[in-house]
Amino acid sequence: MKRIAVFTSGGDAPGMNACIRAVVRGAVYHGIEVFGIRRGYTGMINGDIFQMTSHSVSNIVQRGGTILKSARSKEFMTPEGRAKAHEQIQKFGIEGLVAIGGNGTFTGATIFYDEYGIPTVGAPGTIDNDLYGTDYTIGFDTAVNTALEAIDKIRDTADSHDRIFIIEVMGRDSGYIAIQSGIAGGAEMVMVPEVLTPISEVVNTLKQGFVRSKSSSIVVVAEGEEEGSAAEVAEKISKLIDEELDMRVTTLGHIQRGGIPTAYDRILASRLGLGALEGLMNGEKNVMAGVINNELVYTPFRDTIRLPKPISEDLLRMVKILSV
Amino acid sequence: MKRIAVFTSGGDAPGMNACIRAVVRGAVYHGIEVFGIRRGYTGMINGDIFQMTSHSVSNIVQRGGTILKSARSKEFMTPEGRAKAHEQIQKFGIEGLVAIGGNGTFTGATIFYDEYGIPTVGAPGTIDNDLYGTDYTIGFDTAVNTALEAIDKIRDTADSHDRIFIIEVMGRDSGYIAIQSGIAGGAEMVMVPEVLTPISEVVNTLKQGFVRSKSSSIVVVAEGEEEGSAAEVAEKISKLIDEELDMRVTTLGHIQRGGIPTAYDRILASRLGLGALEGLMNGEKNVMAGVINNELVYTPFRDTIRLPKPISEDLLRMVKILSV
Amino acid sequence: MKRIAVFTSGGDAPGMNACIRAVVRGAVYHGIEVFGIRRGYTGMINGDIFQMTSHSVSNIVQRGGTILKSARSKEFMTPEGRAKAHEQIQKFGIEGLVAIGGNGTFTGATIFYDEYGIPTVGAPGTIDNDLYGTDYTIGFDTAVNTALEAIDKIRDTADSHDRIFIIEVMGRDSGYIAIQSGIAGGAEMVMVPEVLTPISEVVNTLKQGFVRSKSSSIVVVAEGEEEGSAAEVAEKISKLIDEELDMRVTTLGHIQRGGIPTAYDRILASRLGLGALEGLMNGEKNVMAGVINNELVYTPFRDTIRLPKPISEDLLRMVKILSV
Amino acid sequence: MKRIAVFTSGGDAPGMNACIRAVVRGAVYHGIEVFGIRRGYTGMINGDIFQMTSHSVSNIVQRGGTILKSARSKEFMTPEGRAKAHEQIQKFGIEGLVAIGGNGTFTGATIFYDEYGIPTVGAPGTIDNDLYGTDYTIGFDTAVNTALEAIDKIRDTADSHDRIFIIEVMGRDSGYIAIQSGIAGGAEMVMVPEVLTPISEVVNTLKQGFVRSKSSSIVVVAEGEEEGSAAEVAEKISKLIDEELDMRVTTLGHIQRGGIPTAYDRILASRLGLGALEGLMNGEKNVMAGVINNELVYTPFRDTIRLPKPISEDLLRMVKILSV
Repeated sequence: MKRIAVFTSGGDAPGMNACIRAVVRGAVYHGIEVFGIRRGYTGMINGDIFQMTSHSVSNIVQRGGTILKSARSKEFMTPEGRAKAHEQIQKFGIEGLVAIGGNGTFTGATIFYDEYGIPTVGAPGTIDNDLYGTDYTIGFDTAVNTALEAIDKIRDTADSHDRIFIIEVMGRDSGYIAIQSGIAGGAEMVMVPEVLTPISEVVNTLKQGFVRSKSSSIVVVAEGEEEGSAAEVAEKISKLIDEELDMRVTTLGHIQRGGIPTAYDRILASRLGLGALEGLMNGEKNVMAGVINNELVYTPFRDTIRLPKPISEDLLRMVKILSV
Repeated sequence: MKRIAVFTSGGDAPGMNACIRAVVRGAVYHGIEVFGIRRGYTGMINGDIFQMTSHSVSNIVQRGGTILKSARSKEFMTPEGRAKAHEQIQKFGIEGLVAIGGNGTFTGATIFYDEYGIPTVGAPGTIDNDLYGTDYTIGFDTAVNTALEAIDKIRDTADSHDRIFIIEVMGRDSGYIAIQSGIAGGAEMVMVPEVLTPISEVVNTLKQGFVRSKSSSIVVVAEGEEEGSAAEVAEKISKLIDEELDMRVTTLGHIQRGGIPTAYDRILASRLGLGALEGLMNGEKNVMAGVINNELVYTPFRDTIRLPKPISEDLLRMVKILSV
Repeated sequence: MKRIAVFTSGGDAPGMNACIRAVVRGAVYHGIEVFGIRRGYTGMINGDIFQMTSHSVSNIVQRGGTILKSARSKEFMTPEGRAKAHEQIQKFGIEGLVAIGGNGTFTGATIFYDEYGIPTVGAPGTIDNDLYGTDYTIGFDTAVNTALEAIDKIRDTADSHDRIFIIEVMGRDSGYIAIQSGIAGGAEMVMVPEVLTPISEVVNTLKQGFVRSKSSSIVVVAEGEEEGSAAEVAEKISKLIDEELDMRVTTLGHIQRGGIPTAYDRILASRLGLGALEGLMNGEKNVMAGVINNELVYTPFRDTIRLPKPISEDLLRMVKILSV
Repeated sequence: MKRIAVFTSGGDAPGMNACIRAVVRGAVYHGIEVFGIRRGYTGMINGDIFQMTSHSVSNIVQRGGTILKSARSKEFMTPEGRAKAHEQIQKFGIEGLVAIGGNGTFTGATIFYDEYGIPTVGAPGTIDNDLYGTDYTIGFDTAVNTALEAIDKIRDTADSHDRIFIIEVMGRDSGYIAIQSGIAGGAEMVMVPEVLTPISEVVNTLKQGFVRSKSSSIVVVAEGEEEGSAAEVAEKISKLIDEELDMRVTTLGHIQRGGIPTAYDRILASRLGLGALEGLMNGEKNVMAGVINNELVYTPFRDTIRLPKPISEDLLRMVKILSV
């Protein structure tokens, strides 16, 4: 393989730049030409493709977002779109791809390979940590720390006013951000999609807090929670408690996607970027590079897409014990 | 004056602890006994009052929230409530009060003085910077930096996706947090209650951005903005732009109230706490300690309550110039 | 087991408070009485021991340092000191100990068990990550992120002035902090005690940087590096390069020990605190709770003390590739 | 004036990029062509000069360091060097300069004007806050907050071990960073060059701390302190105290120069950049733009260079009172 390209696709995540840097520097190290594609499949279709050197990725390891930009491309979902993309890939003489993104990205890459035989190796770039085939995804550790910093700040106010806060964090269908930021933030309760948490249980925990004269309580709600959004959860709680509650709702929102990546995310991203590149060089295709138990592993896209990623029972148990 | 008390009231603000510390240490330094009242006027009514020493305020200068806790008391608005409060104040032999809070707090203190002759000197503790009589209030600088950090993170995502973000920040009727975080965050537009900003102007600015191929745009909206909340502003914008926009709305919310205070807030809070205490010792009453042009000044509560605090024309002009 | 005690010993590390909280809350959850011992073995000897409740550990999960304070006790190294300590342990009816610290702490606990039969389970609390028996120690992730934040700041100046910086980070005999902060910070070179790095190699890397017209270079030196301190390394470099270099040396120092713990450290600390407690309840003794490959494991003190903890070859290789 | 240039010179300071951005965007707004000069006077001599547009300064407001890079030029101190510089300035048709830097920079600009009549307006860019003619310099607020964050971290360790820390902060001949970070960090003592502080007084304060059983003490020493460096101060203290002290020394070093600028620094830098540009447009020359009492003012270079900037007596008094 003499010439490859790298792109980011789907929602951006902190650490994507560190991953791009590892792909580019790794390619330079191994004597391979490397191109960047802007805005994922959109740029592939439009030929927004440019050669990258070691310099192209100087001083980006610490930046959030992605210098290659990201987008979701409807056109790539059509045969015509993929034909245009293939034309560009051929025009630039690109023999293989490193795709940094999530399952939507990997689904596109799989179809593209089936149709045109261009191999792709993926790196898991998403704050949600919802990908089978790796313990953690790029951006997750930063998102958890951002959520945690917010919870710490809100705890200041909650304590000062003896207030209950219902805090919604990101994660789509996954409760990982919620459970980790909840444990680290000392939340009294964490509601995740993976586990059924009846509102009555939340109410009981809050009432026990009153009895033990806790000065404040924090409930962290994952955005995919089946009981609804933080606002809906708060309303359901209100209906089940007679006394007047000083309860506030806050949704952390988009701050969780950005920011300077943590050390963990930069190292993971570097390792996965290099792993994806070297996998591609060694003939891997339609697989995602991941780190499981500190070992680099490659998992077929069909498994990362199909298989669920359960949340640790241990963590769920810890929330209960630590909030006594 | 041999014995005074200090309390925090209204919304909590970062730096309140540094202010409490200055009042307590200042009192110790001047040989005056000092008491803390918990939960503002609520604690005054309930006698939740305790003696403080130099040790009571060790290691709190860096903490958000308020160790004396805060609350809004409806009971203190009644003559009966104030009678109970006075009973407690007498019981503890307290001769003067330092109140850290905003206009609600100062209004209560004024009535209390009229009825019972207990003098209060105030310190401006609110993130909103909406108090006449001081250039900045305690907590404002921290809130601006918290909002700014959030804007920086959101900019990462906005740039990565060529997106427009409408970000709502706190400030109640004041546009100070919006204008300062907007300028510092490089916002393309800032909407504040003090100035009429027609939606058409916002739309024009955004369209000019497209023309100059800005990759992203950020509009900061103060919560008191007359065009409505960030969500409402976004909807109005959508209606005036034909092409499909990738526009997102985010409301920063309660994270702006908490957090580790900045150096500025700790120093300002220390200075105002000491200033309030020494004012009280020197016979001041019904006044708020403030810092104007780096000088300590005392402003009557009736003025801090009555007079508006206009936003600087210079800052408004800067937003326009810097977003070209 | 009905009554246990917890203490911190040796250098403090961020996350120790989260660990103490987990031990205390876990004990409350399991219906066991729990005591805190101040200043490690010093407080054990002096009887500085007090009962803890769920409330004792409220609002500490986010604080650096240790609320139980820490110290190194020379007296406990003597039979007389341990006899006094045992007297106090008996007086308070304590049947088992959770010790948060490093190898010095565990050595003491082993001797104490041999003499008096009081079982101890340890939790690895040290920023250095130099303990066999756990992938990471409590405080390490925070220390790496603190070092990284410093490197990021220094990179700003290095780039602005086209300068070489030699930065010394902590870690005693271990290169873990150096290697992780170096990779994450984009260092051109990392010097660790585990690997021989001749100065000539450093000089070559720096010279190659000039050739590729890198605008700045950063060399991270572990404090245990056999070539000497950062200052000594800088001097050796100067002697081997003819041209005049704009080279600066900075030693990060004690800031690496403190600070708000990261999410990772709080979760790890909580898990290990609970694990140590439940190990003790289940009859474990003279072992350290650790997490290896995401599983809780107990390793005998004699192994944590005796066995080396090698640094990953993968990480060393990454530094080289990523700095091309 | 139709064409101007901007450059940064001397030590870099956080906020310089925000200042460059304001100069460039202001010029675009006013219809003036604007050029950037790299590495200060060095680039002026070498013709390292390039046209800047609104885009050139996108997404830099939040970055530390200076995108124009900085250097100290010995050659510009010679008539030959300045002749070369003038040649380049003429070649590019540049009619006026905005110089972001300190007194060294302004001295050079004054001589250059005397010889060649090219007018310069300065903006005060230095973390040291040692310039007469402005309340605060660009970078100072960030440096104080960086020093403060370090002090907060060190306090965690100091408290955990009942230790004394002697911390050296930057500031050259000025005690501003020391006094502000010291007050905000709750230091027991601050030693600044502006005030004679006999070691005996430091020792007395520390001893009083022991008597009041303070668990830790922090002494902040400005780098220009006449009693010597932090290490020398620590040694002098040791000699005057009989009992064994657990005392540590740490020098914060270069981290104080870099980092993401605070809101305050970005706003101040924007205002001063715009002020310098508009001053230049209005015929000002050999003056520095500053903000005093929230008003934009221009002060002749000869005064900024000649006149001292005393430290506030109020602040010095506050250290003493707040450490009781």
